[in-house]
Amino acid sequence: MRLHAVIIAGGSGTRFWPLSRKKLPKQFLALGTERPLITETAARLKGLCRPAETWVVCGKAHAPLVRRHVKGMSPAHVLVEPEARNTAPAIALAAAHVHAADPEAVMVVLPSDHHISHPAGFREVLGQAAEVALGGHIVTVGIRPTRPETGYGYIRVGVPLGKGPAREVAAFVEKPALEVAKLYLQSGDYLWNGGIFVFRADVMLDALARHMPELSRALAPVRLAVGTKGYAKVLAQQFPKMPSQSIDYGVMEKASNVAVVPGDFGWSDVGSFAALLEVRPLDGAGNVVTGKGALALECEGSVVVAAGRPVAVVGMKDVVVVDAGDAVLVVPREKCQDVRKAVEALKARKLERFL
Amino acid sequence: MRLHAVIIAGGSGTRFWPLSRKKLPKQFLALGTERPLITETAARLKGLCRPAETWVVCGKAHAPLVRRHVKGMSPAHVLVEPEARNTAPAIALAAAHVHAADPEAVMVVLPSDHHISHPAGFREVLGQAAEVALGGHIVTVGIRPTRPETGYGYIRVGVPLGKGPAREVAAFVEKPALEVAKLYLQSGDYLWNGGIFVFRADVMLDALARHMPELSRALAPVRLAVGTKGYAKVLAQQFPKMPSQSIDYGVMEKASNVAVVPGDFGWSDVGSFAALLEVRPLDGAGNVVTGKGALALECEGSVVVAAGRPVAVVGMKDVVVVDAGDAVLVVPREKCQDVRKAVEALKARKLERFL
Repeated sequence: MRLHAVIIAGGSGTRFWPLSRKKLPKQFLALGTERPLITETAARLKGLCRPAETWVVCGKAHAPLVRRHVKGMSPAHVLVEPEARNTAPAIALAAAHVHAADPEAVMVVLPSDHHISHPAGFREVLGQAAEVALGGHIVTVGIRPTRPETGYGYIRVGVPLGKGPAREVAAFVEKPALEVAKLYLQSGDYLWNGGIFVFRADVMLDALARHMPELSRALAPVRLAVGTKGYAKVLAQQFPKMPSQSIDYGVMEKASNVAVVPGDFGWSDVGSFAALLEVRPLDGAGNVVTGKGALALECEGSVVVAAGRPVAVVGMKDVVVVDAGDAVLVVPREKCQDVRKAVEALKARKLERFL
Repeated sequence: MRLHAVIIAGGSGTRFWPLSRKKLPKQFLALGTERPLITETAARLKGLCRPAETWVVCGKAHAPLVRRHVKGMSPAHVLVEPEARNTAPAIALAAAHVHAADPEAVMVVLPSDHHISHPAGFREVLGQAAEVALGGHIVTVGIRPTRPETGYGYIRVGVPLGKGPAREVAAFVEKPALEVAKLYLQSGDYLWNGGIFVFRADVMLDALARHMPELSRALAPVRLAVGTKGYAKVLAQQFPKMPSQSIDYGVMEKASNVAVVPGDFGWSDVGSFAALLEVRPLDGAGNVVTGKGALALECEGSVVVAAGRPVAVVGMKDVVVVDAGDAVLVVPREKCQDVRKAVEALKARKLERFL
């Protein structure tokens, strides 16, 4: 079995402003460790996929960053999307390339901007998923919930599939209300959908043909053009024709050959600055204090990120203070998502150069 | 009557770090308005004292700043203290110079780093005080308290002195406990001691001779040297001999010819960043937001000071965020005095260059 890693790095977003910028999205930031999330994503596959079997899908503006931060991979494996069109077209494009390179390949699709604190456990789960995928299933890795999170989609597990840990998927369910999330957590029948999928390239291409025929039709000329001189032109023509849809909605929720393998490997989607308190080492008072110049005195449960200059945070509780060098953010930990309000305000003031 | 303003600008301190530095103490910061406190201090005397009758006592390192920020004054009126030795030596030095320039002068002694929001009312009170001073009293301006402040000394007023608003001073009292301060506030018999004094130069020189004979003896050669080539040398020799004491303790509390004139002119000693909420215009949510780049979104009762770069403060309550350009401070409003902890921490980390 040849495993090919496909890292989806098309994300943009503003939840990590002022660290993240249009030109430097989250996946290129050293949030979980001292290395960028995408570097860690590729590195934690060591032993499972070689750099020569690693692919990244990203936007044009970010291709140089990908080449810089994912060491050793073939430049030809950086697959540039002509425009951002959600995960189904990104995965379809990767399937076209991987299948052309290796018709028997098993693809491991991974978000580029998550953190995993137990990589060995993660690799083990991917190995189990790959076994199931080899038999023709589209396998999603379900993450054991640790709290009644309302920000994620859930997977209701069905009956066991064979003798391993894999199960059928009873249903994909939308982000629940808090009371519902609590029930999910108690029941033990629900797993988080972390966007990690394992399948054979040919199985995905078949599934796309069946469940997303419009996308599949747009993809056909691209598949023929892979490796030819005309590729870029064909891609530019065809990609915008693909419906902008998630692979979850477009394929997973419709296909009957979907399986789930549960995992418990210290996963975090690093969804906001507050998540740094889950993934980073804490000081004695439960703070994350990182970057030269960061100083948290008599603080609790706070995140202080500096960029060289002294950033002295004194006597604060549950606050996020981030100095990116040319811009500063201060926000209560539980209002991290309001970062977007700062971004909107800067836009309104024609200060896009800081975004 | 010739009034001479003497602005005491010897203060240093860390309560406004990171805006204030060793080389740029509080009095040179634009805290109350868009102009430095010392500039406002001199400017609000307009009509009372001309620049030619304005004197500033300061440390050597700050003399160039004084000349820059107090427009129009004679460079010879910047009186440099060889070392910082509290207010009695500073006032004695000024009295020596003012008396040499004008033996009949009435001196108005003013801290350089306070804010006054009703300058016309302030000038009126100074005029009243000067009338009383002309008759030989050492007059202190007592500020009507507006809250049970425990951080100031108080003046208990005595019987009326003549027909004007002046009163005898029954007692100078130390910083009170909160319960005591509340009683002071209720009684109406107590005024804040704001460090504003009015007296004839000759009366002060006599008072020093009587109540601070050691200081007076050290001052004698300085008085003789004023205006001579040997002045600097004599001052350097004599000034360190003067006891480092406050004028309050050294003279006011001992002299029998002390009077007080009450005043109510929107005084603030601008004691911390939190005081900006008293002296600066507030936005609709009770914040002070000042400096290019400062952005307070859904904040309440907060102080945001920026220095050009965006400083976005989102959803915070009662917080102080100050970006000085090369250093950032975040502290709860009610813990403003803990700024010194940041300063100590920077010292401990050998980061004095930011102090």
